[in-house]
Amino acid sequence: MKKRPLILVTNDDGITAPGIRTLISVMNEIGDVVVIAPDSPQSGMGHAITLDSTIYCDPINIDDEVQLEYRCSGTPADCVKMAISEILNEKPDLCVSGVNHGSNSSINVIYSGTMSAAIEAGIEGIPAIGFSLLDYSWHANFDGLRSYIKKIALQVLENGLPDGVVLNVNFPKLENDAFKGIKICRQARANWVEEFDKRTNPQGKEYYWLTGKFVNLDKGEDTDVWALENDYISVVPVHFDLTAHHFMHQLNGWKL
Amino acid sequence: MKKRPLILVTNDDGITAPGIRTLISVMNEIGDVVVIAPDSPQSGMGHAITLDSTIYCDPINIDDEVQLEYRCSGTPADCVKMAISEILNEKPDLCVSGVNHGSNSSINVIYSGTMSAAIEAGIEGIPAIGFSLLDYSWHANFDGLRSYIKKIALQVLENGLPDGVVLNVNFPKLENDAFKGIKICRQARANWVEEFDKRTNPQGKEYYWLTGKFVNLDKGEDTDVWALENDYISVVPVHFDLTAHHFMHQLNGWKL
Repeated sequence: MKKRPLILVTNDDGITAPGIRTLISVMNEIGDVVVIAPDSPQSGMGHAITLDSTIYCDPINIDDEVQLEYRCSGTPADCVKMAISEILNEKPDLCVSGVNHGSNSSINVIYSGTMSAAIEAGIEGIPAIGFSLLDYSWHANFDGLRSYIKKIALQVLENGLPDGVVLNVNFPKLENDAFKGIKICRQARANWVEEFDKRTNPQGKEYYWLTGKFVNLDKGEDTDVWALENDYISVVPVHFDLTAHHFMHQLNGWKL
Repeated sequence: MKKRPLILVTNDDGITAPGIRTLISVMNEIGDVVVIAPDSPQSGMGHAITLDSTIYCDPINIDDEVQLEYRCSGTPADCVKMAISEILNEKPDLCVSGVNHGSNSSINVIYSGTMSAAIEAGIEGIPAIGFSLLDYSWHANFDGLRSYIKKIALQVLENGLPDGVVLNVNFPKLENDAFKGIKICRQARANWVEEFDKRTNPQGKEYYWLTGKFVNLDKGEDTDVWALENDYISVVPVHFDLTAHHFMHQLNGWKL
């Protein structure tokens, strides 16, 4: 019998977040799990890495389950680098990140610490999946996601992923988790329209909070945003070759 | 006569870095310049945004030139968001980011604060270019880059860029700036092999510094890494639709 797969688990909401605790519990059913996750929330960290500061990484016990766990002071991408080059003795068979408390569909993939961890694993040649639930609450209910997470993870373990591709999985927030099914999608074209909230601190100095409104510019019915709005789980295959191949020919015609 | 273009300038090395001072000086020759740049170095910040902290943004005078300048406590992506929604009264005609002290070719584009600022501008519909020099020194000499930066910026102002595309421009480090010319390239497939430098702090606790070695996995002669190694300036058109379209058909065949 084949040995159990080695599974690396991380996230961006921090190692104690309910989302990652669910993910760990599901992964314990299918493999040997090692967790290296941020010791504090890292939402919106994008693909940041820690170049100018020190990084701490220490073993920790959070529950009585079988997985090994480490809390790391770095970013989600740092956690994956740390796992691969310092903590694990062999390359994991799978890296899963999340479950994120909040959406990483559409352009959010760019800002997402959850997805940057999955992408970092992909860069290092490890099949990887980021999972997110469209519910920002710390007390979100992840139970209904378990069977889907397991199915998707098992399929990735069985089929592998092409070099340079990771999966971005988002779950809509639904009463009774009445998902209509899973849809393979493309990333919807969208952006955020910022609304900076300007305030004055107790010393009289002005400062801002970043807030904003998500604007979907894409009417396609093959996008992740459409799928999620229509009660489907969205799966977007994501790559990290950012070359805009379609523009190369025209750019070659410029007087440069 | 057409009015002078409005040009937003930012970077990730901080507002006092010699690289951005050169870029500002070149942009002053072709347009009305507003600078909103980080008040401290932000290298490796990827596409991080500030969700859990306050942001300060204040006018500052650094030299006697004509541009308006603001230093911002946020990330490079925050600076662009702040510029567009709070500081500028109209959408800029161009956003330029850099000149970065160090390479942003190949997979470095993912980790780069310089490129994340350009990409953020692109997401918001502004033609944008990131410039980088393959010299990490604070005292790098940017003089030989000026005519190329000006030419590329003027071409972008004249031709525009397609929706969803920004340019990633890297300059090799050469004696006497003997560039062979400009090459339109694709992003080389590469990764970093990390070597964490493990140390012990004065309290006896172990910590790490992230270091690593860049490994080019791509032998193609149409890549940015090849161009730079062969004394060309590389220009990669970059997009931020991360959908791996080539894998969608196969993924649809999975049992999900």
